[in-house]
Amino acid sequence: MSVSAVAADRSVCAPLPVLGRDVLVPLVTGGEVDYAALDYAASAPALQRVWDDVAAYAPYYGSVHRGAGYLSQLSTDLFENSRRTIEKFLGCGTEDQVVFTRSTTDSLNLLASVLPQDTRVFVFETEHHASLLPWEQRADTTVTYLDAPRTPRQAVDTLEKALAERDPYGPALVCVTGASNVTGELWPVRELAAAAHAHGARIVLDAAQLVPHHPVDIAELDVDWVAFSGHKLYAPFGAGVLAGRADWLQAADPYLAGGGASRKVSRRTDGGVDVEWHTTAARHEAGSPNVIGAYAIASACQALTEAGFDDLVAREQDLIARLRAGLAEVPEVNVLSLFGDDAARVGVLSFVVEGWNSSHFAAALSAEYGIGVRDGLFCAHPLVRTLLGSAPQDPGECGAPDAAPGESSLNAIRVSVGVGTPDEHVDRFVHAVKELVTNGARWNYHTEDGRCVPARSAV
Amino acid sequence: MSVSAVAADRSVCAPLPVLGRDVLVPLVTGGEVDYAALDYAASAPALQRVWDDVAAYAPYYGSVHRGAGYLSQLSTDLFENSRRTIEKFLGCGTEDQVVFTRSTTDSLNLLASVLPQDTRVFVFETEHHASLLPWEQRADTTVTYLDAPRTPRQAVDTLEKALAERDPYGPALVCVTGASNVTGELWPVRELAAAAHAHGARIVLDAAQLVPHHPVDIAELDVDWVAFSGHKLYAPFGAGVLAGRADWLQAADPYLAGGGASRKVSRRTDGGVDVEWHTTAARHEAGSPNVIGAYAIASACQALTEAGFDDLVAREQDLIARLRAGLAEVPEVNVLSLFGDDAARVGVLSFVVEGWNSSHFAAALSAEYGIGVRDGLFCAHPLVRTLLGSAPQDPGECGAPDAAPGESSLNAIRVSVGVGTPDEHVDRFVHAVKELVTNGARWNYHTEDGRCVPARSAV
Repeated sequence: MSVSAVAADRSVCAPLPVLGRDVLVPLVTGGEVDYAALDYAASAPALQRVWDDVAAYAPYYGSVHRGAGYLSQLSTDLFENSRRTIEKFLGCGTEDQVVFTRSTTDSLNLLASVLPQDTRVFVFETEHHASLLPWEQRADTTVTYLDAPRTPRQAVDTLEKALAERDPYGPALVCVTGASNVTGELWPVRELAAAAHAHGARIVLDAAQLVPHHPVDIAELDVDWVAFSGHKLYAPFGAGVLAGRADWLQAADPYLAGGGASRKVSRRTDGGVDVEWHTTAARHEAGSPNVIGAYAIASACQALTEAGFDDLVAREQDLIARLRAGLAEVPEVNVLSLFGDDAARVGVLSFVVEGWNSSHFAAALSAEYGIGVRDGLFCAHPLVRTLLGSAPQDPGECGAPDAAPGESSLNAIRVSVGVGTPDEHVDRFVHAVKELVTNGARWNYHTEDGRCVPARSAV
Repeated sequence: MSVSAVAADRSVCAPLPVLGRDVLVPLVTGGEVDYAALDYAASAPALQRVWDDVAAYAPYYGSVHRGAGYLSQLSTDLFENSRRTIEKFLGCGTEDQVVFTRSTTDSLNLLASVLPQDTRVFVFETEHHASLLPWEQRADTTVTYLDAPRTPRQAVDTLEKALAERDPYGPALVCVTGASNVTGELWPVRELAAAAHAHGARIVLDAAQLVPHHPVDIAELDVDWVAFSGHKLYAPFGAGVLAGRADWLQAADPYLAGGGASRKVSRRTDGGVDVEWHTTAARHEAGSPNVIGAYAIASACQALTEAGFDDLVAREQDLIARLRAGLAEVPEVNVLSLFGDDAARVGVLSFVVEGWNSSHFAAALSAEYGIGVRDGLFCAHPLVRTLLGSAPQDPGECGAPDAAPGESSLNAIRVSVGVGTPDEHVDRFVHAVKELVTNGARWNYHTEDGRCVPARSAV
């Protein structure tokens, strides 16, 4: 997974068409401007191709696994073929299963529910809450939180040491992000996987931020599972994926109890109920499958493959370089980083601006420039606090500003791009940052219902 | 909730436009015909209005609760306003919460996860597996399965007796369907709720089959929770609802652990992690909300309300009368019923045909008439076996035929209608049943990959 190798021999392509690229939004200073969606890391716009595929299918919608009619059969085939497309996209082997969930969060909660008795989980404090928090729900699971490493090598060393020292030396799982949702930095997944396996542990890759930006191959990375969400992969229809080894999934109780997961249900003579559960992916997919959500993800995988994923990576690397070069010209901007300037990264970058409250800055980017970014702690509180150097007793709400405009910033600003981002959005963003830092905001802002919004009057 | 009172003073309206009403499907006997979707009880087609609303919103899609940009703010408002619309549609009070899930199955699994310690659950064997099976997942929950009643009065008496006899007399929950997914018959929900409350128990209504066909008012029915799915309510975008009392939900651990549910996360000095969870609906909605799914449900609620739900009920009652009158003319057809001919019902009806394997019959309806129905045990195995009088040792897969064509039938055929069903579909269905019973199928059928499908040759 060498980004630089890809970038060296590239033919830069155009952005892929996405919904919303012509949407006009009002400016507080008057007039309208086309919206610059620079919050791909939260939720990416839908690919036009994904929308068109969903729209073409929608009249043919029918129940999956549950009907004798033509549209039910067609929908069942579409759903199962979507599973095959995603298996192929991820390089799944014959031992692997693709289970449809509703999101990365759901996928990792599912995995947490199927861990063998008394599993030890190892996770860096730098993870998104979706990867950090699911493991403590079961009383028999023990979680070891590892301190933030400052180099990829240190990450591997830290993990190896922790795995070697575990006592007892029982079943273990490592959960690690592929690309940080805060810094965009790539983690040494292959090396961490090798370390895990060398110490008899398994590893799950939180690929929520990696899959939209970079090819992910389960076999090549040698990870046991991959989890990701449709809504970050340009397919926002309520579905996600857990892909990987079937054995723990087959051995565990179903994630949800209900129809679809149950093969046979019968009353016992003592009045109770006996259930025989499926052993396929259906075991953990109780309820009617979200066929539109699954098909949308498959459509996105197909679209990225057909566009040439290497070309898309190359283009994104150009955008990142443009973005970083622009911000480097503003001394007041401090970009947050664990692994330093030379780290390989995807198009996600967080920063703070000296003298600015981040929520205030983000509100001005939106209201005065039509630019959508995110401010906050990005559902990765320990990581952002480590990066900001703030004390753990300064907690911030997920997605909400920590301090009123004008107060010192306890949170950060995140800008993120994807396959639909035109150069102009990045250029507008860099220009806006420079202008705000130099001239200040043209409008007043205040906090209302927990949001930092324009006040009634200009500055 | 008196259907007859509504039906007596009605003005019959036209079917509401749905997607797929012009879809042509091939006939095995040659040519094409427009598809007659008569499997609403599994998954209903999307309302055109729902699709149009989703399509109009899609370019404005942005992250919910997570962004400073204009489209994020708009999407957050749309998501929370969708919650308000559904609260109003269900008659929720100030103590109630609407939690977005992915389906009825998910809603009931969520409720199972928040029950107080050592809750006793009471459920009739006649429930769909989604209502029957979630409760045994927790070791401290005890489930009492009640035998199928043969009158609504017997249902209430059976429940009262079981609740009164429970020992110890601790926390208890009753789970009951509003309308059977097999017979379409209405259950005496208000009376069961009164019985539950008289005995210090709470009650959750599985409204998956009721909400699409009949107004449901939490306060009027006096139930504690209502669960339903978008995909049966003409809004197939991967979302469902659990609405009702907030107290048990607020007191319990989050359903999924992750971002969105967590307010504050920080490392402890001992290396562990402290989490403060939200106490609003967000507590059980970890991960990025499925805003399209939630909005689609709200749009469907709005569409049914604006069309005049009483008129829609009246029209459906006409369709049911037409359907039942047609089938009554075919002595070989045995309609399955718990409560008898006079029972109030929604547009869901199951039957067997003497001398026919149900899968074979359903396959012929599809291949020779373009009619989509369902055959099987409808994820309600104990109920269907009770209705068929077959022994519990004859299990059938959920959604798959039990026996090869020509063998005696261990499963049934279900036909179901909804707000988009034109009269012609019901007429075609009745005509097809009569023709098949009189003349037999014109084609041969066999089982392939678990499906009953047309063989290569005609009869």
